[in-house]
Amino acid sequence: MWAMIATWRMALEGITAGGEMLEQGAAAGEALEKAICDIEDFPYYKSVGYGGLPNEEMEVELDAAYMDGDTFDIGAVAAIKDFANPIKVAKRLSAESVNCMLVSEGAEKFAHKEGFERKNMLTDRAKIHYRKRVKETAQELRPYIGHDTVGVVALDQHGKMVVGTSTSGLFMKKKGRVGDSPISGSGFYADSTVGGASATGLGEDLMKGCISYEIVRLMKEGHHPQAACEIAVSNLDAELKKRRGKAGDLSVVAMNNKGEYGVATNIEGFSFAVCREGETPAVYLVKNVDGKCIHELASEEWLNNYMQTRMAPLSE
Amino acid sequence: MWAMIATWRMALEGITAGGEMLEQGAAAGEALEKAICDIEDFPYYKSVGYGGLPNEEMEVELDAAYMDGDTFDIGAVAAIKDFANPIKVAKRLSAESVNCMLVSEGAEKFAHKEGFERKNMLTDRAKIHYRKRVKETAQELRPYIGHDTVGVVALDQHGKMVVGTSTSGLFMKKKGRVGDSPISGSGFYADSTVGGASATGLGEDLMKGCISYEIVRLMKEGHHPQAACEIAVSNLDAELKKRRGKAGDLSVVAMNNKGEYGVATNIEGFSFAVCREGETPAVYLVKNVDGKCIHELASEEWLNNYMQTRMAPLSE
Repeated sequence: MWAMIATWRMALEGITAGGEMLEQGAAAGEALEKAICDIEDFPYYKSVGYGGLPNEEMEVELDAAYMDGDTFDIGAVAAIKDFANPIKVAKRLSAESVNCMLVSEGAEKFAHKEGFERKNMLTDRAKIHYRKRVKETAQELRPYIGHDTVGVVALDQHGKMVVGTSTSGLFMKKKGRVGDSPISGSGFYADSTVGGASATGLGEDLMKGCISYEIVRLMKEGHHPQAACEIAVSNLDAELKKRRGKAGDLSVVAMNNKGEYGVATNIEGFSFAVCREGETPAVYLVKNVDGKCIHELASEEWLNNYMQTRMAPLSE
Repeated sequence: MWAMIATWRMALEGITAGGEMLEQGAAAGEALEKAICDIEDFPYYKSVGYGGLPNEEMEVELDAAYMDGDTFDIGAVAAIKDFANPIKVAKRLSAESVNCMLVSEGAEKFAHKEGFERKNMLTDRAKIHYRKRVKETAQELRPYIGHDTVGVVALDQHGKMVVGTSTSGLFMKKKGRVGDSPISGSGFYADSTVGGASATGLGEDLMKGCISYEIVRLMKEGHHPQAACEIAVSNLDAELKKRRGKAGDLSVVAMNNKGEYGVATNIEGFSFAVCREGETPAVYLVKNVDGKCIHELASEEWLNNYMQTRMAPLSE
């Protein structure tokens, strides 16, 4: 059995390619890297890799992480600029015994010395988004609470599980801002003896509950991934509302080492992509109905509309 | 009831000062800030604040975090240079709704605009340590696995709990390296309805188990802080040995909202400092005997020796 699940519709092509590798017997880490690189390379996704929207200084600062569920090796980068594939740098760092999480200029120096591809990650399209936003909010730049981080959990035919994340973070974030994506236990967690999980949403709130670690822990206690996701999202959402009056966007995907998966969210409009041995890769939409999260296969219309929206001509 | 517990003997004077504030009715956050600032300001501690040992480029890069156990507000800085008190910047960031974790230059810009005190954190003594180390390891700079992060958990008379950390990280670390100290759930976690915990040790390994979150979770399940600490350290130590053949240094302190505390470690020589209403502030040494961690009051001789070692003349 091999399987792969990822946050958001944007991951479909990536996990399809990764799934083909898993079908051929590739290691989970290789397939996951391929899947996330495809998403990082696609210029029309505004929240991951090339074409990601910039911070308030119009710099594209990227976060990524990788975790090996066999060894617990973790690699992570945060606020890294001008490298084509942050996930590759994170995966490379996971092979180190110390200095596994590097930020900003230090991360860039490491990536440079290791020969990773330099790339100006700021696209013309992202610049237009930036300038429009500056005009709209002439008084004050406020971060835009979009949250389309890609998080992928992969299981290979050898039973190994890995998890990876990649994001450009909040549009108009402050320079140096780090969300949950490169934070162990918050943006990601994997244990091959149990399963893996990844989160997307308001990083500042996701890290208040170490939600990915908690989901894997719930699966370890015996919960199905779907129940684990629903419990973790409901509990954190409720705690945040009790203590703060409101909860940010919280969306999660998880998979156990049998290839069973779960997804939960506290928002409308969360989508995910999944591919598993013997099944056609597909995109589902998630609806939260009183804490139970229902998955509905995305229609052709929805899929077409998604891509048209993202690729629509953009003018100032 | 008020109480404060902290990693390492170095915290004694700081928590004594913080404890006096708590006795007078101060908020947990104010007392914790005072305690950690005192440690950051003391030039002879090699792993926190002023006098902290530098990275491989001879820069003192500092990490700090603060969490409010009532609201789950979190503020954190990582790889910040040339500010006197990273804990103050972290605490200030915890008041923001987004952009709460800032790294490197972005963190410095924020701190500068907020008017925090600039200070060259590299002391002559730290430079001697650096140059000696360079001579010793002429072939290759390897990070020194010292791990004297300060982590403090505080409970005030109103029942509020907070946790904070501050560290210069591994001596000779790579530029931009981030350990567990500013990572939610790994270096710190607090929930006023339960308790708080903080960790010190090899950050790369501590974050593999989200150990501070796990300890608070175990206390929430009903475990005494001592049991929670022992379970969390034993489990992570065992998992790391099983999967990696070895485990890095793992040391933790925790306190519940009744002021009961716990401490555990997998090393020899871990010390902690504690002060509680009606008790004299004291330093204890921790011994791990088959998974049970015994606390022994530090002798006058040990305390004198500790300080003499740290303040001994240093020459090249």
